[in-house]
Amino acid sequence: MTRTLIQDGLVITAGEELSADVLVDGERVAAVAASGTEVTETWARGADRVIDATGLYVIPGGVDAHTHMEMPFGGTFASDTFETGTRAAAWGGTTTIVDFAIQSVGASLREGLDGWHAKSEGQCAIDYGFHMILADVDEHSLKEMDALVDEGVTSFKLFMAYPGVFYSDDGKILRAMQRGAANGGLVMMHAENGIAIDVLVEQALAEGRTDPRHHGEVRRELLESEATHRAIQLARVAGAPLYIVHVSAEQAVQEITGARDLGLPVFAETCPQYLFLSTDNLAEPDFEGAKYVCSTPLRPALHQAALWRGLRTNDLSVVSTDHCPFCFAGQKELGRGDFSKIPNGMPGVEHRMDLLHQAVVDGHISRRRWIEIACATPARMFGLYPRKGTIAPGADADIVIYDPQARQTLSARTHHMNVDYSAYEGRQITGRVRTVLSRGHVVVDGDAYLGRTGHGRYLPRATCQYL
Amino acid sequence: MTRTLIQDGLVITAGEELSADVLVDGERVAAVAASGTEVTETWARGADRVIDATGLYVIPGGVDAHTHMEMPFGGTFASDTFETGTRAAAWGGTTTIVDFAIQSVGASLREGLDGWHAKSEGQCAIDYGFHMILADVDEHSLKEMDALVDEGVTSFKLFMAYPGVFYSDDGKILRAMQRGAANGGLVMMHAENGIAIDVLVEQALAEGRTDPRHHGEVRRELLESEATHRAIQLARVAGAPLYIVHVSAEQAVQEITGARDLGLPVFAETCPQYLFLSTDNLAEPDFEGAKYVCSTPLRPALHQAALWRGLRTNDLSVVSTDHCPFCFAGQKELGRGDFSKIPNGMPGVEHRMDLLHQAVVDGHISRRRWIEIACATPARMFGLYPRKGTIAPGADADIVIYDPQARQTLSARTHHMNVDYSAYEGRQITGRVRTVLSRGHVVVDGDAYLGRTGHGRYLPRATCQYL
Amino acid sequence: MTRTLIQDGLVITAGEELSADVLVDGERVAAVAASGTEVTETWARGADRVIDATGLYVIPGGVDAHTHMEMPFGGTFASDTFETGTRAAAWGGTTTIVDFAIQSVGASLREGLDGWHAKSEGQCAIDYGFHMILADVDEHSLKEMDALVDEGVTSFKLFMAYPGVFYSDDGKILRAMQRGAANGGLVMMHAENGIAIDVLVEQALAEGRTDPRHHGEVRRELLESEATHRAIQLARVAGAPLYIVHVSAEQAVQEITGARDLGLPVFAETCPQYLFLSTDNLAEPDFEGAKYVCSTPLRPALHQAALWRGLRTNDLSVVSTDHCPFCFAGQKELGRGDFSKIPNGMPGVEHRMDLLHQAVVDGHISRRRWIEIACATPARMFGLYPRKGTIAPGADADIVIYDPQARQTLSARTHHMNVDYSAYEGRQITGRVRTVLSRGHVVVDGDAYLGRTGHGRYLPRATCQYL
Amino acid sequence: MTRTLIQDGLVITAGEELSADVLVDGERVAAVAASGTEVTETWARGADRVIDATGLYVIPGGVDAHTHMEMPFGGTFASDTFETGTRAAAWGGTTTIVDFAIQSVGASLREGLDGWHAKSEGQCAIDYGFHMILADVDEHSLKEMDALVDEGVTSFKLFMAYPGVFYSDDGKILRAMQRGAANGGLVMMHAENGIAIDVLVEQALAEGRTDPRHHGEVRRELLESEATHRAIQLARVAGAPLYIVHVSAEQAVQEITGARDLGLPVFAETCPQYLFLSTDNLAEPDFEGAKYVCSTPLRPALHQAALWRGLRTNDLSVVSTDHCPFCFAGQKELGRGDFSKIPNGMPGVEHRMDLLHQAVVDGHISRRRWIEIACATPARMFGLYPRKGTIAPGADADIVIYDPQARQTLSARTHHMNVDYSAYEGRQITGRVRTVLSRGHVVVDGDAYLGRTGHGRYLPRATCQYL
Repeated sequence: MTRTLIQDGLVITAGEELSADVLVDGERVAAVAASGTEVTETWARGADRVIDATGLYVIPGGVDAHTHMEMPFGGTFASDTFETGTRAAAWGGTTTIVDFAIQSVGASLREGLDGWHAKSEGQCAIDYGFHMILADVDEHSLKEMDALVDEGVTSFKLFMAYPGVFYSDDGKILRAMQRGAANGGLVMMHAENGIAIDVLVEQALAEGRTDPRHHGEVRRELLESEATHRAIQLARVAGAPLYIVHVSAEQAVQEITGARDLGLPVFAETCPQYLFLSTDNLAEPDFEGAKYVCSTPLRPALHQAALWRGLRTNDLSVVSTDHCPFCFAGQKELGRGDFSKIPNGMPGVEHRMDLLHQAVVDGHISRRRWIEIACATPARMFGLYPRKGTIAPGADADIVIYDPQARQTLSARTHHMNVDYSAYEGRQITGRVRTVLSRGHVVVDGDAYLGRTGHGRYLPRATCQYL
Repeated sequence: MTRTLIQDGLVITAGEELSADVLVDGERVAAVAASGTEVTETWARGADRVIDATGLYVIPGGVDAHTHMEMPFGGTFASDTFETGTRAAAWGGTTTIVDFAIQSVGASLREGLDGWHAKSEGQCAIDYGFHMILADVDEHSLKEMDALVDEGVTSFKLFMAYPGVFYSDDGKILRAMQRGAANGGLVMMHAENGIAIDVLVEQALAEGRTDPRHHGEVRRELLESEATHRAIQLARVAGAPLYIVHVSAEQAVQEITGARDLGLPVFAETCPQYLFLSTDNLAEPDFEGAKYVCSTPLRPALHQAALWRGLRTNDLSVVSTDHCPFCFAGQKELGRGDFSKIPNGMPGVEHRMDLLHQAVVDGHISRRRWIEIACATPARMFGLYPRKGTIAPGADADIVIYDPQARQTLSARTHHMNVDYSAYEGRQITGRVRTVLSRGHVVVDGDAYLGRTGHGRYLPRATCQYL
Repeated sequence: MTRTLIQDGLVITAGEELSADVLVDGERVAAVAASGTEVTETWARGADRVIDATGLYVIPGGVDAHTHMEMPFGGTFASDTFETGTRAAAWGGTTTIVDFAIQSVGASLREGLDGWHAKSEGQCAIDYGFHMILADVDEHSLKEMDALVDEGVTSFKLFMAYPGVFYSDDGKILRAMQRGAANGGLVMMHAENGIAIDVLVEQALAEGRTDPRHHGEVRRELLESEATHRAIQLARVAGAPLYIVHVSAEQAVQEITGARDLGLPVFAETCPQYLFLSTDNLAEPDFEGAKYVCSTPLRPALHQAALWRGLRTNDLSVVSTDHCPFCFAGQKELGRGDFSKIPNGMPGVEHRMDLLHQAVVDGHISRRRWIEIACATPARMFGLYPRKGTIAPGADADIVIYDPQARQTLSARTHHMNVDYSAYEGRQITGRVRTVLSRGHVVVDGDAYLGRTGHGRYLPRATCQYL
Repeated sequence: MTRTLIQDGLVITAGEELSADVLVDGERVAAVAASGTEVTETWARGADRVIDATGLYVIPGGVDAHTHMEMPFGGTFASDTFETGTRAAAWGGTTTIVDFAIQSVGASLREGLDGWHAKSEGQCAIDYGFHMILADVDEHSLKEMDALVDEGVTSFKLFMAYPGVFYSDDGKILRAMQRGAANGGLVMMHAENGIAIDVLVEQALAEGRTDPRHHGEVRRELLESEATHRAIQLARVAGAPLYIVHVSAEQAVQEITGARDLGLPVFAETCPQYLFLSTDNLAEPDFEGAKYVCSTPLRPALHQAALWRGLRTNDLSVVSTDHCPFCFAGQKELGRGDFSKIPNGMPGVEHRMDLLHQAVVDGHISRRRWIEIACATPARMFGLYPRKGTIAPGADADIVIYDPQARQTLSARTHHMNVDYSAYEGRQITGRVRTVLSRGHVVVDGDAYLGRTGHGRYLPRATCQYL
């Protein structure tokens, strides 16, 4: 086994900031010791490779708990395959993704999951797991949930939006939550009142309000917070925990805060796009707003303060990307003249770690909180800890050497995601990934990609570690 | 025209308590004067009839804004006809009802309304108006709403419960609210999450929990408050006012309080059964609990304090009966072995004024508040003021002479409703109706019924007077 | 006795709006009858005087529950005497004031009350009562409270502000509240944390922030809401009701709303200056801001929405003036170079009814609510109902004939208060007093003042009628 | 330097649970490695001492941020000296205390601090730091705050209780908070409205309610939550952070929760006595209740659920002991016949770690949370991290080997505190300290005390690490 010593960096985890050396033995972290001591000198002598991290951060690889590689949507597919998407993730310091396998209406969970295994097997640059989208809750699929939990697919997403596609009514949601309460599966919720939204969509289109910005206007904040409230109450009735995905509205944060104040097991994530972008982007002229169409939608910029506060108070405990890229040319353009036909989704898997480091620089969060929301908590939430999400003896050696002083400019010209635009085109970032280890292997080193397709392994997951 | 003088009573309205004489000229109140003055002496000399109200209250006739005479439900019909039900109302000091005409699924509002006119025309002992139940919201029925508002049916009830019967989804609710916001129609909401409740009903029955008390258990408090919250948010999105019917759970009151604190035009009623009865009644042995099956269900007794407080703070502003009687024999019994087959509804139209007077005696509310929640506010809420709901020059002479010291015992043996049990059997009440005038005519005098079938007139209503 | 008939107006009370004639017999209202009927024709024939109110409102005379005539403050005196101030009140349609008698530190309540009787006796144009300011809570003054309640001084104001002058610490407040809970006296509270404010005042002056606008800045909103919260909790501990005077900050309204949602007997007033003026006025150049110095201070304009909402939801239930005028020349000028030396107070007793009618015109409140907050509720709150605050048989004939269409411009050139400026100089108002009756006597008729010094009688008051 | 290897335990910190070996070199932790690996084998060979922790927890030594050794109170002194108290702490697995130096009224902070240094110097078994009690806020003491922060006394306690002793009025509090906001000093607050409480004390005694349980009754919950609210608002006005000590009432937790939901830097601790004892103890007969007299007082047992929930939600982030023992005989007895003369305080420094482990066993908190609230957070809160509060390379080797299966019974017969009773007499605990290292030295090993008086060093502290 290869022994790698990462020397003299500042090791940052959710719990600690240490001037320490990290010894990697094969695919795992073997030990951590105070830098410059007799112990580490010994290690240096025995190491196969020594990485000098002086002046740099040594952080756990990112865990992105919400991606949609090659996802079918509205007749097209998300433009990143597992190969291209996970490679881009690695470039950005993310070493684990949890993607969403999808049940088709009328088909079994098994069929859906098999399909996602088939698409991802041997394709990934980094380790990966699966959530399961429950699109058709019935007796059979409820039973299948038990089996999936046993084999490591321990979280199940339901939709209060998208009637006729992924939508489940409150009865189906209640049943799935009850089942999850029994088998340990965590229900993840897309919380928007899609039934009401579709009325507003129809009215907007009928009145000629067809531009991308109307996507944001009809998906009213109150209809996100209403659905959030409803999901919480259904979870209480079911005696189940709940994880709300992609929270964007201040009012929804308030509902989550209220639930957590009661001590309920309600968790939530937000995404970088809600923290850094706004309805101003949706209103960009020449149909450029379509680049920012996703659901929940971007909100007016004043919501951002509530999201940052939620991240500080832990009412929001995870930042995921909801990475689901569609090219502007040929894909986003399907919705010209009808915003409801714009494929919903944005690219982002590559930039999460950097954008959140920028938040550290900007004073929104602390360094440890950066690692907590981007690595440790998603790992715990989805049963991957301590293998993923931290740097500790025994953990997988998914480690990023991060240069906090480097400056970079985000752009479609330089990013590695397979999509023809960047949602952050031209944005200046302080901080940059220097080196990335995935299970002890260096997969990115400066400007060199050293990884390989198929290095990434499938991760069966334990159940939520907060329950 | 007959001139009647009501002398020396304590005239109580929502606004005043006065030692005053009331002069009735024909069907209307002509004047009010301080008792024992020259003015009233003159009146006494010119009166055709003088009613001595010394030591008695002189109050407006009650306005019961929520009744269901002859309502079809689960293959049977509410046991009071317009004839028997309005007569019982008169006996109890209620001189106006607003009943619910029902649209059948697949039929027009017009057909439903015509049916209710046919049933009630020439049958009523007291004046009456109609709300309309919207069971099938579509383009046509939305258009019909405008016409109904114009002709005096200005409020429309929707159901978040009873899937497959009266249930409307959130999109239909939103559309009806939008229409109401435009045409002045007030949406009334049965706020329970019926979709989720039906799951719990099915599970309860499958597990053999079939007794009446399980009716109360599956219709969870959180599923009332959830629906209340949702209805409020949909009303906000629509820019519409909202009236929540038959609130029974403390948590629902909290949702309403929160909305009203924001200044939203959200109103609510509760009913005597929620104030005086509880799940203890639903748990009565030998299927007796079936007598108390109604929806929203009775709650544990500790909810009553929140309802009384809501009535004092005006977060609850109306007490209606939701009168919908089914005989125990032959009707309630349909649900032996399956609580879901018990017809939902309870008798009550006769006892509302007395029970609320008991609340005055018990210190829950003041005398003026008694009149406000039972007479004045329902009249204003549903566009009948000042014709109904008060005693004032120009108002209809719907007047009750009430003896606050008399004692009575409620019982099926003595009540006038056409139903074989009393929900309040054996309950002692302090206070009793002495004399009732409907539009200047004495219809009840002590133990004598002097009214007649067909005296009551249909009341086209104005729109809500709180907007 | 003189009989006066007020014919054909729209009679507006807190409870009703009626097209009715009002018959006044001597000093009291004898009867109210529908206009244009046989009854009123009879009255017209027997009347000594008939006032034609066609097209006009007939409303109760205003009740201003918060005035400070001739109040000593900072070495000077409020510039209106009981004679000039009550005359100005009458001009503005206010027919009752409740003024604040003051206990001096070291003196008894009796001495203070006697002094106020001496100042007011034979001086007033309209009827008047007294609250008592408790400046020195000790065993003796607590005992005196009982006697004062018995003789009709049933409310006692304490100050959490003005250390060294009127200030009571929390222990004294608690004792006074306990005593009030026992004897029926209502504690009125000036709720500002004066101890903390004085620190900020000292710091502001030390830093050269001496202009009038700094008066508003140091009296922080949070220090009003903190004191409001504290007063509420002390009242809970004492088991006592509470009335908060001159609420100006949104956060204070929230505290009151929260208390009332709990069903606590907490009441509050605001004043026209907080509804119509703002810190913009305090910032007027050339020391003109001093005209608007009062405590609690004016707030940024955005607080007004919360105050109007509070008035609609009844979390604020009274509008008083806190009339306490100081001339700009010679009085307000005492504070040039040191805002803390500006006498605190503003003129307003004359304009309350007009400004609140303007609020009706502007859509903030309804006509009935106008009368409720300006007449009926202050009368009930301070034990004067139904003698004052309404138009009803048996009530004092304090009646205003109000022209809702007339337009006027407020100005120091035309007002009748004894003060050299108007806080509303140049403001256009729709609506104007036409005729004023005080106990049946016409005291104002158009541009003629027909009242007389000494007509006003002292009003011993009952205890609060909301308890 | 001695090298100690702690082998094969479960290392638990706030952030991680690891099967790992810990290498201690001299007084510090040198490294942590996965157990049973080549790395640890090497270490074992080079170690001076190997501690076998198989089946045991390896946790950071406890940090008790609230003790009062030898504190003067009501004419007597807390019965533990620095020598006896810190030894008892060590026995219980606590390796750091932060005690309160006291400013006397009229004296300087310097004099107070010097006195505490004199008392503690050379006496302590474990490391210790000081907070400073500000009893006399004036210009001079405010200036002294700056100097103390610079030399490592970075937190300052003020009292809203105890008028005439430690009490500061709101103006003094505001000034101290402002100063702290500028110099980094953290204000700690005893939040009870002592002015109001003293009225209730006086009334209780006058009415013969003199038993210990009345101590709990007069110190009303609302008077704790009121003061908590007030302290928060003053901190907002000052722009300062705030730390509330010894929270016991549910309502106070709610105030803190509300503040934290707003994102305010408000922190709070509770103590084991509030989590495990109640007013039932205060009501023990034969004056035994006096053993439980402390302020804030014990509350009815139903408050405990709110405290546990607050600890889980992090609205309460620290558990300290407020250790302040007085013997029953001769000290507590001073208050026979007058509860106000009972010295306020309870023994507890020895049992905190055990009681909180019991909470882990009982399911109230997780193992990591145990360490977080008892070690990591107090260390961060008071500027001692990462030297104290964790096990990490570079940290002080303050380490406890804890047996989670051992059972013990708390009793005055066996405890090491210098006090003649136990507040937990007879209570069974699962879990027990096996071995304690303070800065690498074994001070407790099973039943043997191996420490020495004077081993403990004074700890100058950094400022709060949450700001």
